[in-house]
Amino acid sequence: MLAEIITIGDEILIGQIVDTNSAWMAHELNNIGIRIKQISSVSDDRQHILTALDEAAGRADVILITGGLGPTKDDITKKTLCEYFGVGMVLNQEALDNVQNIFQRLRGTLTGLLEVNKQQALVPQNCVVIQNKNGTAPGMWFNEKGKIFVSMPGVPHEMMYMMEDDVIPKLKSSLVLPVIIHKTILTVGEGESYLAERIADIEDSLPAHIKLAYLPKLGQVRLRLSGYGENEALLKQEVNEYAQKIIERVANVVAAEEDIPIEKAILDYMDGKGLTLSIAESCTGGYISQLFTQHPGASRVFFGGGVTYSNELKEIILGVKKDTLAQFGAVSKEVATEMVEGALRNFKSGYAIAVTGIAGPDGGTAEKPVGTVYIAVANVNKTIVKKLTFGNKRRQNIERSAISALNMLNTLLHDSGKLG
Amino acid sequence: MLAEIITIGDEILIGQIVDTNSAWMAHELNNIGIRIKQISSVSDDRQHILTALDEAAGRADVILITGGLGPTKDDITKKTLCEYFGVGMVLNQEALDNVQNIFQRLRGTLTGLLEVNKQQALVPQNCVVIQNKNGTAPGMWFNEKGKIFVSMPGVPHEMMYMMEDDVIPKLKSSLVLPVIIHKTILTVGEGESYLAERIADIEDSLPAHIKLAYLPKLGQVRLRLSGYGENEALLKQEVNEYAQKIIERVANVVAAEEDIPIEKAILDYMDGKGLTLSIAESCTGGYISQLFTQHPGASRVFFGGGVTYSNELKEIILGVKKDTLAQFGAVSKEVATEMVEGALRNFKSGYAIAVTGIAGPDGGTAEKPVGTVYIAVANVNKTIVKKLTFGNKRRQNIERSAISALNMLNTLLHDSGKLG
Repeated sequence: MLAEIITIGDEILIGQIVDTNSAWMAHELNNIGIRIKQISSVSDDRQHILTALDEAAGRADVILITGGLGPTKDDITKKTLCEYFGVGMVLNQEALDNVQNIFQRLRGTLTGLLEVNKQQALVPQNCVVIQNKNGTAPGMWFNEKGKIFVSMPGVPHEMMYMMEDDVIPKLKSSLVLPVIIHKTILTVGEGESYLAERIADIEDSLPAHIKLAYLPKLGQVRLRLSGYGENEALLKQEVNEYAQKIIERVANVVAAEEDIPIEKAILDYMDGKGLTLSIAESCTGGYISQLFTQHPGASRVFFGGGVTYSNELKEIILGVKKDTLAQFGAVSKEVATEMVEGALRNFKSGYAIAVTGIAGPDGGTAEKPVGTVYIAVANVNKTIVKKLTFGNKRRQNIERSAISALNMLNTLLHDSGKLG
Repeated sequence: MLAEIITIGDEILIGQIVDTNSAWMAHELNNIGIRIKQISSVSDDRQHILTALDEAAGRADVILITGGLGPTKDDITKKTLCEYFGVGMVLNQEALDNVQNIFQRLRGTLTGLLEVNKQQALVPQNCVVIQNKNGTAPGMWFNEKGKIFVSMPGVPHEMMYMMEDDVIPKLKSSLVLPVIIHKTILTVGEGESYLAERIADIEDSLPAHIKLAYLPKLGQVRLRLSGYGENEALLKQEVNEYAQKIIERVANVVAAEEDIPIEKAILDYMDGKGLTLSIAESCTGGYISQLFTQHPGASRVFFGGGVTYSNELKEIILGVKKDTLAQFGAVSKEVATEMVEGALRNFKSGYAIAVTGIAGPDGGTAEKPVGTVYIAVANVNKTIVKKLTFGNKRRQNIERSAISALNMLNTLLHDSGKLG
């Protein structure tokens, strides 16, 4: 069963927003056994939308469309869908009630409700309306031309609720779905081609309906096995058997046996062992903390920490010595060490991370150019500090510092686990 | 001048990664007057890639391709490009030197260099090689079929350097480019349809070559004017005149007169006035801090703060009273107030933000359900605390709390500016 996603809106094509919807939708669809053939982003242009609908319908059975449903003039998806299906618009009373309820809740009155707001309740006459619990634009489900078309708002949380509450259940009940099983192994600390060499014979032995992909990213490589078939239990077992062979082969670099980011693997590991963590961030400025705290249950492991951006806060919050800052500078092995040990001491966690560096683009010197970062990880027994040198891109320096810190903590945890 | 972007790789289509490359590339291309007609994500499948190339070349003059250039078996872009152009592969010595240099740098030896690594230096014989300064896979530039095709790695920082250093300059020198001028106005605190109503006459008066788009997001609406023409200076002036009319009309809700996020608008405003900021985050867990610190020069305004996830850290870092925590709970108006005032006092900034809430999915009660958040903003003269109630999605609760806090700080700053 194949689907395509069409996102409509100039804002994606001029690079003003990143299309996060498609990845989320693709993930949800894959979970129920629907493969995405293509994702296309097209402009708020009548002819372009019509062509994209035609091309997608020529390749796939399910076409999911997001965007272009707002109340303003640049939003033409609904009108264009009417043209595509050769139908007119009708008023949907439930959608109008919803528009009025939202308006009433936000403004405390219906006075001032605009004609464009009311128009949001107009829908193509051949659609089944999917009510929007989080906004004014209704979703629309079409059974036409032997295909399923679904049009949803581009606002992520409106689309997500609609998918979870209505579209996914309706797809499951409307279609006979094949089975796709993905199994991902997260590895840390070995390059893609080395991994490939180590598991070459396992890869060569894979049957045609199981594929292996390498997804490398900053010191990590995800190995993803994808199996396609009909019998879910059998396929799962088969994919898992190959996964176990790979895991055994490269056990020394496996950080997780599922598709989770490294910080989640760390949280799970620490939670399982009752370990606790705090963080002292300078150049990463809260980035590492929010990586951890985006995950439910982070509070069982993560106490918190200091975003000690200024030197003064390094002293106040972490107890870094004024002398150390003066003698070695904020970006130094010595300060990183005092930061991580200050975090352990002041925040009373079992493990700590500290990062201090020059993210750039300013602040570099000949001796310490932009991209110079000191990362420390520690527990009560051991402090490890590394100097790393990245490039001159701020965002990248922050992200790489974070990933490096996580990789270091992961190694410290597993080494400590082995020793202890 | 039209371009298309094709991203190749199953990892996007199964939703494992978000395609951030395309938005970045689209933004860069728009800046030099190249419009993106369509962005397509296709699978690592020979026939699908060939079809996508054909479709894109039928619509656009420049086709930028990312992904599928890794050393492993699932990466087939290069082979497929050879087939598309009907050419064979040749060894590029400079690319091989590059592979060997990177290998030598990482491993300290050339021993162990694999055949698959060497194969990265093979390129289609009709391409101009774009050397990769950050990885082993070279980029490729093709002048074929009256079009320009460029194939680059999918790893974001490799692609970015290649675009900045080679592809953009080469496109500028190869093409006669039209002019596109975008001008964006960031508004905070008024709904899309209300804004549309207030500026309806200005919108109606726009000439055909200037378009207005509304980009709403969580309490903010971006108004984007896009002008298409030939004379850059004239077009800029024209777009700016319409922008000024809009800005004057809705002045009370304008947070920035350029396309920047709200936290950057705040940083710029505070920097201009010599104001300083610290942050105390509980449920947002570092998210707000990293929003600020992702921007160069944040340290001129932002001192840092505490990610006080546990109650104990609220006491240690912010001086929140144990009694207050016990009596009202960590998620309360009283604790938010003590957090924000503790941040002002301990971190010695002129302004502070504090957030405490229940991000979920666990931790909610009947009285304080998941999504309950208290946000405080303060300066020495004034503390404002708001209770907000969001939904049950953790990520969304964190992001909405952050945006709400930023909107509140923006209002406090501008109100204080007016009063002071």
